[in-house]
Amino acid sequence: MSAAETDLPALLGRLRTAAGPPQVLTDADLRASHETDWTRRWHGEAVAVVRPAATEAVAAVVAACREAGAAVIPQGGNTGLVGGSVPRAVAARRQVVVSLTRMGDVEPIDPVAGEVTVAAGVTLGALQAQLRGSGYAFGVDLGARDSATIGGMIATNAGGTQAFRHGPMRAQLIGVEAVLADGSVVRRLPGLLKDNTGYHLPSLLAGSEGTLAVVTRARLRLVPHLPRRAVALVAVDGPDEAVELAGNVRRQLPNLLAAELFFEDGLTLVLHHAGGQRPFADAHPAYLLAEVEGREDPTAELAGAIEAAGPLVRDAVLAGDDAGRARLWRLRERHTESVNAEGIPHKLDVAVPVRRLGAFARAVRQTIAEVAPAARTFLYGHVLDGNLHVNVLGPPPDDDDVDAAVLGLAIEMGGTVSAEHGIGVAKVGWLKANRGAADVAAMRAIKDALDPDGILNPGVLFG
Amino acid sequence: MSAAETDLPALLGRLRTAAGPPQVLTDADLRASHETDWTRRWHGEAVAVVRPAATEAVAAVVAACREAGAAVIPQGGNTGLVGGSVPRAVAARRQVVVSLTRMGDVEPIDPVAGEVTVAAGVTLGALQAQLRGSGYAFGVDLGARDSATIGGMIATNAGGTQAFRHGPMRAQLIGVEAVLADGSVVRRLPGLLKDNTGYHLPSLLAGSEGTLAVVTRARLRLVPHLPRRAVALVAVDGPDEAVELAGNVRRQLPNLLAAELFFEDGLTLVLHHAGGQRPFADAHPAYLLAEVEGREDPTAELAGAIEAAGPLVRDAVLAGDDAGRARLWRLRERHTESVNAEGIPHKLDVAVPVRRLGAFARAVRQTIAEVAPAARTFLYGHVLDGNLHVNVLGPPPDDDDVDAAVLGLAIEMGGTVSAEHGIGVAKVGWLKANRGAADVAAMRAIKDALDPDGILNPGVLFG
Repeated sequence: MSAAETDLPALLGRLRTAAGPPQVLTDADLRASHETDWTRRWHGEAVAVVRPAATEAVAAVVAACREAGAAVIPQGGNTGLVGGSVPRAVAARRQVVVSLTRMGDVEPIDPVAGEVTVAAGVTLGALQAQLRGSGYAFGVDLGARDSATIGGMIATNAGGTQAFRHGPMRAQLIGVEAVLADGSVVRRLPGLLKDNTGYHLPSLLAGSEGTLAVVTRARLRLVPHLPRRAVALVAVDGPDEAVELAGNVRRQLPNLLAAELFFEDGLTLVLHHAGGQRPFADAHPAYLLAEVEGREDPTAELAGAIEAAGPLVRDAVLAGDDAGRARLWRLRERHTESVNAEGIPHKLDVAVPVRRLGAFARAVRQTIAEVAPAARTFLYGHVLDGNLHVNVLGPPPDDDDVDAAVLGLAIEMGGTVSAEHGIGVAKVGWLKANRGAADVAAMRAIKDALDPDGILNPGVLFG
Repeated sequence: MSAAETDLPALLGRLRTAAGPPQVLTDADLRASHETDWTRRWHGEAVAVVRPAATEAVAAVVAACREAGAAVIPQGGNTGLVGGSVPRAVAARRQVVVSLTRMGDVEPIDPVAGEVTVAAGVTLGALQAQLRGSGYAFGVDLGARDSATIGGMIATNAGGTQAFRHGPMRAQLIGVEAVLADGSVVRRLPGLLKDNTGYHLPSLLAGSEGTLAVVTRARLRLVPHLPRRAVALVAVDGPDEAVELAGNVRRQLPNLLAAELFFEDGLTLVLHHAGGQRPFADAHPAYLLAEVEGREDPTAELAGAIEAAGPLVRDAVLAGDDAGRARLWRLRERHTESVNAEGIPHKLDVAVPVRRLGAFARAVRQTIAEVAPAARTFLYGHVLDGNLHVNVLGPPPDDDDVDAAVLGLAIEMGGTVSAEHGIGVAKVGWLKANRGAADVAAMRAIKDALDPDGILNPGVLFG
């Protein structure tokens, strides 16, 4: 340990100079909410939580940490699910949480370009509120909208229900401002949709999970807000039919906004825990929830597209009014809480190529049954992303066999061990198996080049 | 010079082993078309042009070049405009052109996912032909479609007329296969729209101009094909009005596919050289060409959107039939050849934030008039990308003053010295002024990490 590393008061002094003394939290009580993630699975101790309010302050904080040999743990809304936003439980060096939540500016919307510049700490919900009435919307939406910050959503390349339509966060990024490990600031924010002047750093930072830079500000693409919506819930024979139907509907209705899948066992569980009426007189193997938006009421064209699918459809119900749409959506959205009400599930977030989604859904149930015969498996997800959330009740939390079986199957079928949540610290052991040695070596080379001292979120991604 | 570098026969032997003897072109006649770009401004000599037909062969070629200390010049359709696809005129080491045009596979379209995997040498035109009748289209289109290859379009992050709608090439990339400088192959092609397992190499390679890897294959996102189109040509008071009108139309009609700007002097020149009728009885300062697509005929809704713009519109003409649309489009598309018919223009490809397009268009004429009072300036471009093609007739080809004035103005107004064409060797001197020292240092660190010997397209981007 070098002299610099031992001198904690000097580090804290520099952090106070950088961010202002009241913004350097060292009391255990004040640090606590920043040191444990919201799943309560991940926890570690920081020497301080620093809350800078300006880019220059972030840069000074990063520079101070680098010189002191301390790790920087960037943190947004701390809604991540893979342990990437809190200090490591075991760390080789001091850890400083850099919380970006005080960076909350939303600049005026640019109505001609359809773009907006926001600071990293702005929550998705705050951005959505700002956009109301502007004629624009943001292309990514997700459940944690009131806590998740734009900076964190960039770092984790958030996906959500509309990814097949508008792409994930990476696709919304026109520019970023970010602090690199050496304290320098990369910045390209004017809003240039076409800009072929070398490597596109925003795309590289999206999904880098805080290992390459601390994102401080972003220029975001907006999408036209289409005010009218219609939802259909369609009963089908199984996941293959759901995939085929969703593909058909999208080809006919480019304004398809969501295509969500769930199964009879999940529906039964939701009705048991969350109440409500069965949507159909009979039970069916699987259900596709499709939402379409439009400038005019799209109910009739959604009905037409479903009717055109003929024998793929066992039964269907449509809703064009707000209450009816909400009633159908809750059958899908209440899955998480209903599963949680039964016990602590193993939650896996995998994707496979869309054309293999049905085969995966069948195979994964069988694989889990072999590993844990008493387990109960609930599947739901985003059809057109090939993204299934696999929830397994029964095996104790520290049992790795089910997780390994599910993730191994996803890889075997050409899929990913993390569709949305990221690698974090939770899936570090799966990175090479999933991406291959050449990809990981290239990633590692980039990491070492941009952060030679390894101070940015060490332990995440590469372990 | 090391022994390896002097041993040309050994290098050629290894290249022949890698690609097959007939695919290693060393005769000057056979090399010629690969050594000069199509603008005839850039030329250099290669010891060989190698034409591998498989990824493994590309990897073996790159490995051979690395061991021999030779430079790899990746080449697609050789339609680039900044000298990045041909050997350097002055080079510190031997240069080998690696032409990817024999890699021409298009895999079957995945109709459910709306994706297709293609080899790097497939031309855009061949891909478009393959998509006909599939219900899908490709989101990038450009004039050089019958020569430009997908690999080259990735390397240069091609933009074109629809970038504001579907994004540039980077936004179409779901996965790539590429050969790195060490001969290893990165590959992630199954088609995963959501895949948060670390850094997204496809986005990094898009626009890297052959300096980080040789792209061999790509998984591409497709967009729904909407069969009906309508075009309007609208006369307006100037570029500010064109921007405002285009923004209005887009907010009302999300299926707006093109919003092209030109001016009265350009129209007059096109009518003079290419013939045809004036679209309006009167001359007007500027013209906006707007194209909308739809499942049904969008002519009426386009007419409605233009009518709603009220006083922004001085005059307008619409066309819903093929012949009428072509007649209006040629007024925009014939600009390039009409300018060329008057002399050899200085051609600059800049973008500014859309909201500043009007101010830039006015300022650039004045700036050029100050530097070269006798010059004639023609402007046209893509309104919603903020992308203007600046064509200057008069100053001799080797006169740098006009270029410097135009590019300097673009930077001053928060813009880019290269909207579409890239940096290549042509704009190396402008990179740092445009991107800033921190951005360029980060780019350079990535380059050195992935290509420590600097064998991939040396001289491009960084000089």
